[in-house]
Formats: sequence, structure tokens, C-alpha cells
Amino acid sequence: MTDLDGLDGFTIEVPSWAYGNSGTRFKVFTRPGGPRNPYEKLSDAAQVNRLTGLADRVSLHIPWDLVDDWSDLKAHADKLGVRIGAINSNVFQDDDYRLGSLCNPDPAIRRKAIDHHKQCLDVMRQTGSTDLKIWLPDGLNYAGQDSLRGRQERLAESLREIYDASDDDHRILLEYKFFEPYFYATDIPDWGTSLLHCLALGERATVVLDTGHHAPGTNIEFIVMQLLRQGRLGAFDFNSRYYADDDLIVGSADPFQLFRIMSEIVAVGAHRPESGVNFMLDQCHNIEEKIPGQIRSVLNVEAALAKALLVDQEAIAAAQRAGDVLGAHQVLMDAFETDVRSALADRREARGLPRDPVKAFQASGYAETAAAQRVGGTQASWGA
Amino acid sequence: MTDLDGLDGFTIEVPSWAYGNSGTRFKVFTRPGGPRNPYEKLSDAAQVNRLTGLADRVSLHIPWDLVDDWSDLKAHADKLGVRIGAINSNVFQDDDYRLGSLCNPDPAIRRKAIDHHKQCLDVMRQTGSTDLKIWLPDGLNYAGQDSLRGRQERLAESLREIYDASDDDHRILLEYKFFEPYFYATDIPDWGTSLLHCLALGERATVVLDTGHHAPGTNIEFIVMQLLRQGRLGAFDFNSRYYADDDLIVGSADPFQLFRIMSEIVAVGAHRPESGVNFMLDQCHNIEEKIPGQIRSVLNVEAALAKALLVDQEAIAAAQRAGDVLGAHQVLMDAFETDVRSALADRREARGLPRDPVKAFQASGYAETAAAQRVGGTQASWGA
Amino acid sequence: MTDLDGLDGFTIEVPSWAYGNSGTRFKVFTRPGGPRNPYEKLSDAAQVNRLTGLADRVSLHIPWDLVDDWSDLKAHADKLGVRIGAINSNVFQDDDYRLGSLCNPDPAIRRKAIDHHKQCLDVMRQTGSTDLKIWLPDGLNYAGQDSLRGRQERLAESLREIYDASDDDHRILLEYKFFEPYFYATDIPDWGTSLLHCLALGERATVVLDTGHHAPGTNIEFIVMQLLRQGRLGAFDFNSRYYADDDLIVGSADPFQLFRIMSEIVAVGAHRPESGVNFMLDQCHNIEEKIPGQIRSVLNVEAALAKALLVDQEAIAAAQRAGDVLGAHQVLMDAFETDVRSALADRREARGLPRDPVKAFQASGYAETAAAQRVGGTQASWGA
Amino acid sequence: MTDLDGLDGFTIEVPSWAYGNSGTRFKVFTRPGGPRNPYEKLSDAAQVNRLTGLADRVSLHIPWDLVDDWSDLKAHADKLGVRIGAINSNVFQDDDYRLGSLCNPDPAIRRKAIDHHKQCLDVMRQTGSTDLKIWLPDGLNYAGQDSLRGRQERLAESLREIYDASDDDHRILLEYKFFEPYFYATDIPDWGTSLLHCLALGERATVVLDTGHHAPGTNIEFIVMQLLRQGRLGAFDFNSRYYADDDLIVGSADPFQLFRIMSEIVAVGAHRPESGVNFMLDQCHNIEEKIPGQIRSVLNVEAALAKALLVDQEAIAAAQRAGDVLGAHQVLMDAFETDVRSALADRREARGLPRDPVKAFQASGYAETAAAQRVGGTQASWGA
Repeated sequence: MTDLDGLDGFTIEVPSWAYGNSGTRFKVFTRPGGPRNPYEKLSDAAQVNRLTGLADRVSLHIPWDLVDDWSDLKAHADKLGVRIGAINSNVFQDDDYRLGSLCNPDPAIRRKAIDHHKQCLDVMRQTGSTDLKIWLPDGLNYAGQDSLRGRQERLAESLREIYDASDDDHRILLEYKFFEPYFYATDIPDWGTSLLHCLALGERATVVLDTGHHAPGTNIEFIVMQLLRQGRLGAFDFNSRYYADDDLIVGSADPFQLFRIMSEIVAVGAHRPESGVNFMLDQCHNIEEKIPGQIRSVLNVEAALAKALLVDQEAIAAAQRAGDVLGAHQVLMDAFETDVRSALADRREARGLPRDPVKAFQASGYAETAAAQRVGGTQASWGA
Repeated sequence: MTDLDGLDGFTIEVPSWAYGNSGTRFKVFTRPGGPRNPYEKLSDAAQVNRLTGLADRVSLHIPWDLVDDWSDLKAHADKLGVRIGAINSNVFQDDDYRLGSLCNPDPAIRRKAIDHHKQCLDVMRQTGSTDLKIWLPDGLNYAGQDSLRGRQERLAESLREIYDASDDDHRILLEYKFFEPYFYATDIPDWGTSLLHCLALGERATVVLDTGHHAPGTNIEFIVMQLLRQGRLGAFDFNSRYYADDDLIVGSADPFQLFRIMSEIVAVGAHRPESGVNFMLDQCHNIEEKIPGQIRSVLNVEAALAKALLVDQEAIAAAQRAGDVLGAHQVLMDAFETDVRSALADRREARGLPRDPVKAFQASGYAETAAAQRVGGTQASWGA
Repeated sequence: MTDLDGLDGFTIEVPSWAYGNSGTRFKVFTRPGGPRNPYEKLSDAAQVNRLTGLADRVSLHIPWDLVDDWSDLKAHADKLGVRIGAINSNVFQDDDYRLGSLCNPDPAIRRKAIDHHKQCLDVMRQTGSTDLKIWLPDGLNYAGQDSLRGRQERLAESLREIYDASDDDHRILLEYKFFEPYFYATDIPDWGTSLLHCLALGERATVVLDTGHHAPGTNIEFIVMQLLRQGRLGAFDFNSRYYADDDLIVGSADPFQLFRIMSEIVAVGAHRPESGVNFMLDQCHNIEEKIPGQIRSVLNVEAALAKALLVDQEAIAAAQRAGDVLGAHQVLMDAFETDVRSALADRREARGLPRDPVKAFQASGYAETAAAQRVGGTQASWGA
Repeated sequence: MTDLDGLDGFTIEVPSWAYGNSGTRFKVFTRPGGPRNPYEKLSDAAQVNRLTGLADRVSLHIPWDLVDDWSDLKAHADKLGVRIGAINSNVFQDDDYRLGSLCNPDPAIRRKAIDHHKQCLDVMRQTGSTDLKIWLPDGLNYAGQDSLRGRQERLAESLREIYDASDDDHRILLEYKFFEPYFYATDIPDWGTSLLHCLALGERATVVLDTGHHAPGTNIEFIVMQLLRQGRLGAFDFNSRYYADDDLIVGSADPFQLFRIMSEIVAVGAHRPESGVNFMLDQCHNIEEKIPGQIRSVLNVEAALAKALLVDQEAIAAAQRAGDVLGAHQVLMDAFETDVRSALADRREARGLPRDPVKAFQASGYAETAAAQRVGGTQASWGA
């Protein structure tokens, strides 16, 4: 299966917050051994890379991951064999942001939110990160609460100032989301709105596609294709959903959808590092173990990519040209039906990695050691 | 407009937790003056009744509202002119319930959850409450995580024990919910499942319809009709949604839907107290002021009922019999289009209530006094 | 209520096909008196304008409405007091279009579809119409059936040729639709895709927003705002839905949504004729009488606009600036709650129109005369 | 893989109407060689069984499949190696049913609809069929159009008369559907309503689950489990959907969902013929070839069942008992990831069937022969 050579160089970025506690509005469950600071989060994240060889970057979240000495954190990462990836801003956990951040009707709050992003740009300069990821939580709960249009204007101005403050090697990754944490209107609810702002900002602004941020029934691979066609697909936030933004393990709810997405990626070679698409995870492991959950996730993305690489491109193109509906569909399905588990285990073995990374993690004693050592202090949590 | 006599005796139960802090998984915003204990929650709730004359009962949530001396709390309520309504159990905020409560695969956890409900029955005996409301959060995040069928069997057994422990004047109100806090499967996801368990339990078990707990597009008034037809509509949890279980102010997202629901109620006289349907609110005032939010909510339900009472029943029945599609629809719309604001203000005035309860609250100084007096301690919050 | 002066000059375009038979995939119901040709359709459409004074333009559908002598049809329209509005192309009712039209993998089919649009441009020249409305039905039923990206490229080329063939006073109105008649992917599924093609084409290309063409939960007024902000909202296709593209009478399913949409329109004065937004109906009266259905529809849009004009703009802006969530929302709701039926009837009377246009139609004997005279021939139907 | 022995005896019923023309409300595409009568439909259906060994029964639709001599049609079926399965009533294609059939406000129309079902029972007696499948299209397009409750009462009465007219060896299969062909309310919109009517009728009334008849996000395997638990899952109508009732090839849109459904079936042995669950297809092959489409469909169901049979029941039960979320999920995923194509081809070969039934059909010349011979007459179509 030489098609799997296409996997070479493909990596997935993992988020620092996936190792801390997370939950729903009803409850954040805790577990022994949860990381208490960015150093411990990086240690946990490094396990995923050590066992899969697929995850050599870790996204940070500001202010959750602020440290006094960035060079020290970088050295810690180096030692662990990972490096710092995208910097995520946070404008949803301060009472000031109750009515929004970059769109807030109050200019003082907007100033605060803009300055926070400038702080993130500084973190990028110190960590060598080149991606500033903005998930804008802003929105409204009630019709009439604020001017939808006024908020777009304020958003455009705020983003302009952030973009202008960024360096030439910085990218702005602008995320959209259908709804939540507000429930009537969201200020960047769809890819169209995100793209319009990116187009207005300039070439270094690109769209983030979170697979959980769409209306029911949305054809996500179509959006992937469209953003690639516009040259503006900056990054993925991978996860799974059945209902809302459920943030389940990517590939667990609809593996065929993940495969279709990766097939659009492969169709234009965007899985290759030089494409500039940052494949990231953004999930919540509310009830399952976190490091194994992350390992399973990167393996799921890898498997979907492997299957997408197996699509017989000549055969499918010929069937499509011939108008052979069932034939073209079947070429795709044959790739999806292929069991790639052994081939991927072989590939891992050949690279000096464990055939079964989840089992290897469980056998490693890492979790038990962490539980024993991480006593006292406060476990990190994205909900607080 | 003598049709509005139908409003006589109609009341809405308000929840104690609506006055404490609430929010999303991302943030719980705080405000000065938030209540710190059940006494202060009852005081806040009593404001709604004082100004609208519509809300003389307050639901409690156990363990959030546990007090040492129930007779003292009852006396406090009496003084405020309200009484204690339904008792709500809580099996979603303990680490033990990570994999479920009444459906948990571990019998020890099920025992704990059943015992908690028995504790709630005791609270009912001490407070004079007759309604035990069970919202079962149980569910799964991943296919295969547990046996869907096994969980139904455990649920049936657990409910049986609770039902059998209840008194002859107790009702079990069993809620269903489409999804959340679990995102693959919910153990009581729809009215059909709730009703089947109620039918198995006995006559004192009835279904709770929360207006935010359905799939997109669900015709809720149909379910209202069907449950009334089965004699098993025990209660409403009113709120509004655009997307998921958004818990917005009832009537704020789709006032026509609320009107259609109330029209099904009126069609069989279920708005009258003797019907046994408990009309309750269950909302989150994440960003708006809480007491005015509750006042607005009960007024919205009252307005929808008022409009439903205005439907010309003879005219609509005649048009329906004649197969006059547009004519019958128009009779309904004419009631909905009627502006009932003045008539309802007149009615309030005649009953010695303020014409504009929200303005009256704002003029009362209550909020300012609460903010000044409620210093120190911890504000109540359903998220913690 | 001088605010209603804002209604002056506001008109709604009605579709010729609304008077012919329509239905679902299961059944097209027929009624006596259905129109058999474009002349009879115009006669029916003219009834709506005669009784409401709101609908002086009629959209045509090619080839359904092809006639030999366009000047004769125009003269017929003149006599009836209406004129010909947008020309609608049709690329969904020929066996050749089974796998698409402007996106078809076969260049000969694309040629045929492009030429059809050129024919429509000719009809525009002969009828004085300036709007070419394109609803592109193209899409796929199965993943892999064709290249999503290849289809976008073909679409861009096809549209380019059509745009270039159009005159300087022509507009291209490009519609999007979430799904149907294909069920895996749609080639213009969302406003973003439609807008990207319009931006690529040039200034005379604008987006059509059909209120039934969105995913569940989509905030339509946000899209209205965004397209207005981009200067690219060309037209509405109004109708109502609960589920899919149900094509019910506009305002019948969610009158509050229609009001919110019209509020965004009013906020920037886009209800005035000079705005260039074409307010059109596109509905199916499957089971109700068609002319009364159209009358009810234009009255519903007028009522929603009237209420939107009543929003106290100063008060809402002040509340929004102050961060008064409930206050700002209430200003909007107060306009919505206002009963405008009498004021609009007064206004009609003052303009020499019947107070109740539906009753006036029923009393006119038009339907009975049509049923008696339209004997023989084939009733027009958009499904065939 | 001895687990595949579980496939022995498993069969899928195919519908006579799948071979005739079908389409959307916009267009029914035609193809040369389409069957013109029930005899030709049976011949087409028999091809599916001949090549897969999985489809030995054919559902009929009345009145589409009415013939003068039922024993002759049965003899034709015998010769083809198939037999007649469920009889489907049709109360949606007569102008009389515009406002409903079994729920119609007009007793004369209800009488007609009831009598039609009695005719279907007669067809069952003559064909040896034991299943009467009722899909009730009844519903409303506008709120207020008719009494939701009144319609339930009429429905109950109508069904009672049909049930009472049926024989002791007859089953009533009662289907539910979320929406369409009516768009405000459906008279049997969900499994709960269907089940309530079945419970009221008696033991021979069971529910039909059509996989396309649910709201977005509905967990269908939960419903399968619940209906099995009640002993009332009578039949499946299999197909696929992304949006509404899209009627695509089963397994083409979400193969993991189909696998989860079959896993619930296997969990209680309901795939065995003695379970009484009738596994049927109900799809529209609008743009693809029909016989290959049906072949692909039965193979997809077989593959999903094969994978479900591979789930390691002991391992998953142990992981579930241990609360091992990821472990239990992984056991399920391992079965789904298994490539069963070769094993199933081997199994076919061993049974004297072609390894690749679609290719075998294409090589057989059947389609070309049909196209050459079926000249003149009118092709069958369910839309007319």
C-alpha cells in the first residue's frame, strides 16, 4: 500500500486544554492526575506524540497557559519533543464580556478585548508561534438586544486593529460557530461571515473550520472544498458531534463524514505540510480518559486520511466523467470500506512506534505516576 | 373581553434556581445582589408574584435548597405569600454520576441515586409538596459505551422503587430531553420513552414537557395534545430556544409557538387549576436581570393564554368541518394578532396590581436593596 | 400612526406559477378554474394587485410562460394593471439535466443550460424585465458521484458566459438552497457560495434569499443584514417553513421571524423602492385556494413591514447602548405585539381598496367565473 | 469468521415501486426499460434475489400493483423465485385525500379510505401476504386548519375498523413520519404516536421504522431498541438521508448509523427470521440505475449486519460493566472497521452466487434486453 506514503509529514496539533478538566454547563468531572499548569499539560500532550508520532505541536490558550518565563516553557517543550503551536485568545471568561468582546457596544470593553489579542501576539513572538486563533464567542440572546449590523462594523474595526498589529509571519485564524454561548445570534455564525472578514483584512487572515460548528445537515466537505478553492482554509478544529457542538472524539460519531472531509483535502494535496492547513483537535474528554482520548483522536484522523489516500483517483474521475453515479460512489466507498488498521500499525512499527498506542500508554504507568505526583494545587480546567 | 375570565385561577410555578447564577459551560456571569440561600431565593421569587399575581408557587431543587428547618422555610414562604411547589431531584452534580445515576451500570451508584429520590420524597412530606420532578440526565457519549437496553431495564427498576416509596398524594413528574449533558444517547430522550415508563409505573406518574427539549422542527403542540389525550401531561417546563436547550425567556424566540401550545391547552380546558397540569418555568437568565426576566416570562405565558382564550371556537370548528383551510387558519391568526397588552394591564389594575410589573419592580428599589444587603457569603448557582 | 407612511411605494412581486397547480412528490391536487396559460395566470395575479394595491409585478418562468407574442402578453398585463417582473430560468425539468445543468460534467449539457439562460435574457429584452433569477437545482445524491470542486469551476464558467451576455441594465439574481432536489450536496447551498460567485461576476450580480432555503435554526435576519451590508441582497423569495423548503404562505409558520427580517430591512431603509431589493413570493398553495393564498401572503408581508416600521428606533438604540438586554428586546416586542390590522384596513380604504381583500375576492365571483369559463385544455402546473 | 453464520436465513424485502420511475416534486426522470406493470416489476425485483440470494420477497403497492388475476401473478413470482410480501395501502394520490384520509374531517372520505384498506386485506388473502403496511400521509399545512386532537380520535376509529376486519394471521404495520407531504403537522409523526395506536389496537399491530422519517439528530438505534423492548418493532423501511426523507440508498449516507442499528438488532437476535421483524427497503433511485441500486442496498444491509455480528459481545459487556468508556466504544469500532467485503464475496460464491452481484448484473444483458423489449405502454411511476 504505497499510497500510505502520503501520510509522511502529516501531523495534527493537540490543544493544551484537552488534558485539563472540562465538562458541560451541568458538571465538570474531575480525575486524579489532572495537570495543574502549562508544564504538566505539555507533558501530557507529549505522550500523544511519543506514542503516535503524529502530534508534535501543542496549541496554547491565553490566559490559561500564561507563564512567567516563556523560554523556560519552550525548553520544556523541546525536551519533550514537541513545540508550541497556535495561540488561542480567550474573550469569554471575564464578567466584562457579558455583552460581547470585539463587538461589545461599550468601546472600553472592545479596547480590553483588542488589547488581549495584542498580548496574544506578544506570546506568539516569544514562543515562535505563527498562528493566532480567534474564536469569537460574541452574540446575542434576544432579538433587539443589540444591532446585528452595528456589531459587524465594530467587529471589522476590532479585527483590523489586531491584524495591523500582527507581524508579517503571523496568520490570523478566524473561527465561526453556529451558536453558543449565545442563543439568538452569533456574530460570526458561518464560514461566509468569517471569510468576508478575512478578505477585508488581508492575505494573512484565514478561516478555521471546527467540525462541530454547523447547523444540522450541513455538508462540511463542501465548505472545506470552497475554502480551499478560495485559498483561505487556515485550520481545522476537529471533533465529533451528533447534536450541537458536542466536542466528542473526532471520528467517533460519523467516521464516513471525516473520511469525506479528508478526501476533499487529498483531492488538492492539502494534507501536505506545505499547504499551510493546520489540522488541530478541539475536543472535550468529559467522561473518558484524556490522554487515551487524544491518542484515539489523532489515530482516527490518520485512519481517515489513509483511507482518503486509497481512493482510486483515476477510476473515480473516469466514472464521474461517464456519469456513472453508482460506479463513482462505489470507488469512494471501496476506499472507505478498506481496513487500514494493520497497515497503519505496521507503519508505526517501522517508525519505532508501538503498534497499539492506547495500550502502550496504559502499560506505560504514566497515568498512575501522574496521579501519584500531582497532589495538591488546582487542576487546570477550561471552564474556570 | 370576557374571554379573559378564563385567566382566573391560572398560575405559573417559578423555580428557585432562576434567581441564582447560571450560565453556559463557558462562563457563569455574576451580578451584585444574587441570593445566597433558599430564603433569599424565595424572597426574590415572591417579587414575581407580588407584582404579577401569577406565580404563587416556587419549585425547589435538592440538594441546592436543603435547609435545616423546613417549617421555618415554609413560614418564610407564607409570609412572602408563596408556597413550595415541586421538588426537583439532582443526579448530575456528583462525580459518582459520571456514567449515569438511575441507569448506571454500577448498582451502588444506582442505590445512591434512588436514595436521593427518597430523600426528595421526605422533603415533600415536610414541605407539603406533592410533585417530585425527575429530570434524568443519564446518557452516553459514545456508541457502545453501555447497553442502551440494559439501561432501560435499570431505569425501570430504579423508577419502580422510587414510585413505590412515594405516597398516595404524590405525583412523579418524569421529564424527557433530546440531548445534553450526554451527546450520543439520552436514556429518556423523547415523550414516548417517558410515557412508557409512566404507564409502567402507575397512574400517579406523568410526563413533563420542557419546551426546549426537542429535536429541531418538532411540533410541540402535537405532543401537548397527545399527552393530554392520554391523561399524562403532568407539567410544563417553559422556556424558549432557537437551537438546543437554550433556556431563554419563554415566548421570546417564537411567540406563535407558545400561542399554539396554549391553544391546545385551552381546547380541553387544561389551563384550569383542576386539570392538574403544573405550568412551570425552567430558564436561565445568563445575561439579563433575573427577577425582571422571570416577570417577563410569566407575563408572556399569560399573554399567550389570553390570546388562546380569544380563539373563536365556533368559527374555527365550522371552518374546519367545511374544509376551509385558509378560513380556519385565519380564525387562529386573528386571535394571535390581537393586542392583549392593555386588556391585561387593565385586569392587573383591577386586581390591585401594577399595570407594568417590570417597571414597578425597577421602581421598587428591591434590586438595589438586595445588592446592598447581600454582601459576603456565596451566591447560589445551579452550576456548582 | 404616521410611521405607516413608510409603506408608501412598497410592493411585492408575485409569481406566475403560484396560480397553477403545485404539490409534493406524492401528489399534485387540482381545482376547477386553474389557469391554462400565461394570460390566465396574469389575470389571476392581477386580482391580488386589484384588491391589495401591493402586487403590481408578476414573475415569469421560462419555458412554462413562453408565448409567441410578447408584446401581446405585455399589453394584456398593462390592461390588468400589472407588469412583468423577474424572468426565472428552469434547468430542472428536462431529462438532460439529470446530473446537473450549469455544473454538468458533460459540456454539451452545460451548453444547453447556458443557452437556455440566453433565451431568458432575450425574453427580458422583449418584456422589459431587468431581473434574471437563477435557481440552480444542481447537486449530487451520492458522495463521490462527481467532483464538488470541479462543479464549482464549471459553474463559475457557465455563470460568466451568462453574465457577459446580459445587458447593462440587467441584474443576475443568484439563489442558494440548502438541499433538494438533490440530497447529498447542492452546488449553491448557502449564501456564502452565492455571494462568492456574484463577487466574481461583477456588480450586477446579487443574491436571492429564499426564506425556506436554510438549515434548521439558521438566523435568517443575520444573513439579510450581512447581504445588505455587502450591497448584494438582490431579492427575497418569501415563504414559510417548519421543516424543509415547505413553501407555505409567508408569515404562517413564524410571524415573529418575518417581523425580524423586515426589521433588518427597515433598519437600513431597504424597504424603499430605490433600494433595489425585489420582494418576491415563491410559494406553493398545495391544498388552499391559490388567489386568496396569494392575497393573504402579500398582506402578511405588509403587516410585518408595518410592525417593523413601528419599532421605536431611538428607544431601542438607547437601550442597546446602555446594555439593557431586556429593555432593548422589549422595544422590539412592543412593535411586534401591536395589532396593525385596523390601521392597515383604514389605509386600504383610504386608497380605494377593500378593507378585507380576501373577503372581497370571495364576494367578487371571480373564482366561480374562472371555473365556469376555463373548461378544456390543460391546467398549468409547475411540476410538469 | 464463523460469526457470519448469523447471516443464514436473513433476508430483505424489496419494494415493487423501486423499479418504476420516481423523483422529486420537481422532476421524475425516465430511463429506457422501465417496467410497465406488476409483472415486469417482479421480474426486475427477482434479479436482485437471483444475484444476491438475499431478497426473496417483494412488497406490493395498491392500487399501483392491482392485477386482474392474483393467482397468475403469484405463479409469475414463483417462477422467478420470489414471493409477495407486504401489501402497502395508498391514500395519498386521490383528489379526495387533499385534507386527509383516515383522519379527514369528512366521514365519507374516511369511509373511502377505510374501504381501501379492506381492499388491501383482500389482496393479502389472495396473495398470501400477512403484512398490511400503512403509511398514513395525513397532516396539516397550517395551524388551526383542523383539530389535532379530533384527527387522533378519527384515526383511532378508522384503524379500529381496519384492524377488526383483518384476519388472525394478519399484521398491521403502522408507519410514522416526521413530516411530508404536509408541513405543519403530521397525524403520525413519531414512534410514540404509532405505538400508542398499536397498543390500543391489539397484539397484531406493530410499528414500522423508516430510517428517513425522523428529526435531525434523532438516535434511531435507541428507537429500534425501545420498540424491540416493547415487542412492537414490526418492520424497517430502510433508506438513507442527509436532510429530510431523502430516500437514498441505505448505507450510503451514514454507514456507521446503519451498523449501530443492526447492532441493536443483533443484541437481541432480531435478525433471525423467527423474530418477526420484516427488513424492507423503501428508496427512490431518482438518478441512478434502479436494479443495481437495489442490489447495492441489500448488500449494504448485509454488510452492516455482518459487522454487527462481529462485535465481541463478551468484551464489550465486560468493558461496559467496568465503566471503560473508551474500551467499550473501541470494541464496537473494531467490528465496524473490519473489512467484510471478501468474506461476504466468499460466502456468496459458496452459495453459488456471483462474488460481485452488481458487475454480474451489468454483464447479464438484462438491462439491455428490458430496454429493447419494453417498448410502448406507460412506465410505472409512484408519483402518478
